[in-house]
Amino acid sequence: MTRNARFIDERITLKYGTGGGSMRALIEQVFAKGLGDVGDDGIGLAAMDDGAAIRIGDQYLVIATDSHVVQPIEFPGGDIGRLAISGTVNDLAMMGATEPLALTCAVIIEDGFPRDDLKRIWESIRATCEEAGTTIVTGDTKVMGHGELDGLVLNTTGVGLTKRLVSDAGLRAGDKILVTGTMGDHGLAIMATRNELALETTLESDVAPVHTLVRRALDVGGEGVVALKDPTRGGLSSALHEMAEKSGVGIILDETAIPLREEVRAVGELLGIDPLVSANEGKAVFGLRPDCAEAVLDAVRSHPLGRNAAIVGECVSERPGFVVLDTGFGSRLLAEAEGELLPRIC
Amino acid sequence: MTRNARFIDERITLKYGTGGGSMRALIEQVFAKGLGDVGDDGIGLAAMDDGAAIRIGDQYLVIATDSHVVQPIEFPGGDIGRLAISGTVNDLAMMGATEPLALTCAVIIEDGFPRDDLKRIWESIRATCEEAGTTIVTGDTKVMGHGELDGLVLNTTGVGLTKRLVSDAGLRAGDKILVTGTMGDHGLAIMATRNELALETTLESDVAPVHTLVRRALDVGGEGVVALKDPTRGGLSSALHEMAEKSGVGIILDETAIPLREEVRAVGELLGIDPLVSANEGKAVFGLRPDCAEAVLDAVRSHPLGRNAAIVGECVSERPGFVVLDTGFGSRLLAEAEGELLPRIC
Repeated sequence: MTRNARFIDERITLKYGTGGGSMRALIEQVFAKGLGDVGDDGIGLAAMDDGAAIRIGDQYLVIATDSHVVQPIEFPGGDIGRLAISGTVNDLAMMGATEPLALTCAVIIEDGFPRDDLKRIWESIRATCEEAGTTIVTGDTKVMGHGELDGLVLNTTGVGLTKRLVSDAGLRAGDKILVTGTMGDHGLAIMATRNELALETTLESDVAPVHTLVRRALDVGGEGVVALKDPTRGGLSSALHEMAEKSGVGIILDETAIPLREEVRAVGELLGIDPLVSANEGKAVFGLRPDCAEAVLDAVRSHPLGRNAAIVGECVSERPGFVVLDTGFGSRLLAEAEGELLPRIC
Repeated sequence: MTRNARFIDERITLKYGTGGGSMRALIEQVFAKGLGDVGDDGIGLAAMDDGAAIRIGDQYLVIATDSHVVQPIEFPGGDIGRLAISGTVNDLAMMGATEPLALTCAVIIEDGFPRDDLKRIWESIRATCEEAGTTIVTGDTKVMGHGELDGLVLNTTGVGLTKRLVSDAGLRAGDKILVTGTMGDHGLAIMATRNELALETTLESDVAPVHTLVRRALDVGGEGVVALKDPTRGGLSSALHEMAEKSGVGIILDETAIPLREEVRAVGELLGIDPLVSANEGKAVFGLRPDCAEAVLDAVRSHPLGRNAAIVGECVSERPGFVVLDTGFGSRLLAEAEGELLPRIC
């Protein structure tokens, strides 16, 4: 019996969209049933990784998809368009495909949505594609009635090719955990905006494509980079729980080493949201063999998006599937996002 | 100046989702601006085809995406799950990729949606994947609040490989137009259900994956199959208008040759909806060189989904971009779906 073997409620509620255990149970018990097999040499639906991988000749075709329902659609540091492109480029990179080949974008618009808002979002999409060195090759347009959809929803799907796959499940005892920068920025920037705290803080989303940073780390760390994960919904906590569970290791997290912006800490305390369960949209979590950890850390820190990178934890054979937070004064189990705290964060 | 060079209104309304000229103008003037270039040897966003194609080695990677917002989510002859899988498999086939490699499925669920309804839709997805010989390799799950989304929205994106691409723009004067079966079934089945006529008719959606039918036609017709299109939103009329405009030909349609179910004709008359602007979800439109047209017709008719296939029109050099309906008593220009008649049809 896995941690996901929980009961699915009679009605699907907001907690099934938070990126935590309820969502994984829904995927495991409903969505992945009888679907998603790609053979032994690939990554399919049951792996619940950042995307899928299918062997084609001497390489892998990596595919990742995300729907974006963030509210508000424009927020400090970004907008739904930048979020969609970055999110998909990052999902591909987390599988090892750091050169996005192409994206698709399907848009669903609420009847009455302002044309100029749509144009502004699209300009952000175009600029983020240019920044990421990719483009949108095909799309789809739907309009739903007023009261049937709130605003604008985007789906982006991406494809990339790679010779080497990196899963989120390659950890063993002794491996190091690296984060590429400060944690919780995106989620708390959104929550600050929704709670009308935006004017009182300089808090911004970290939303950005990080594939060139990941490429640099893979170039330096090689086979020593054993796991990669995008700490989006559910934040660092859900990412580490998934990595720990799939790898069958425990993770000891050094709280004092985790990079946090002072504003993120302050807004988190004000709103009662732990930055470690809050979404990131321009960060990565790496699992590293100990002998390459320092070299990868240096490489990541040399990238503009990785200057605050830090090694924040270590894998152990005890408590497989759990994440222990070492606070410096003692230790406790790290909780996962659950319940209905953070809907429409991405 | 093309037919799509029309003004985009200050607010995006339902007519921009109907598959007609307003939608094409929105794509051309907003979505495709500065995006979607795949080089000379491929099909990108500006082509506004059923999907995109990118050269990889000696073959093409074909990608197609669709969001599905159909209402009601279960209808005579199918449901949103079968619609999503069939729609994406068919889009790939219309580019020449008749063996779908893999699909993604991203789901957005309204808070409070019944678990058992979701399970039933997913069983339909699984069964349609099995029928189509493909699977869902990765996905995404979001939940939106009550009042923010009506029911359930699916996005499916598909990938396939093909050595030969077929666009929707290869027509020249003298070519024949073939439809693989009766027209308008899906759209009028949905509209009958919404108007509570379902109990009084036996009308059913035609929703089905037609890739094996397309493969059979390509095997027989070879290079003589010069254009392929999925007559979904906007029906046969929009499909032919797009094909005519892109190819720079006129199309003369023989009204008496178009296969129509008696119930479709009757419900269409009752509701004031022309079956020729009504969506199909298990049909294809072929453009054929005249010397292979009869052989392809025989091949299509030998397939269970093509028994009612017919040659319904011919391309001419006059009136490029227009479709003329020959009624047997005279002729008139065929209109396209426009306005807000048919929202959430797929």
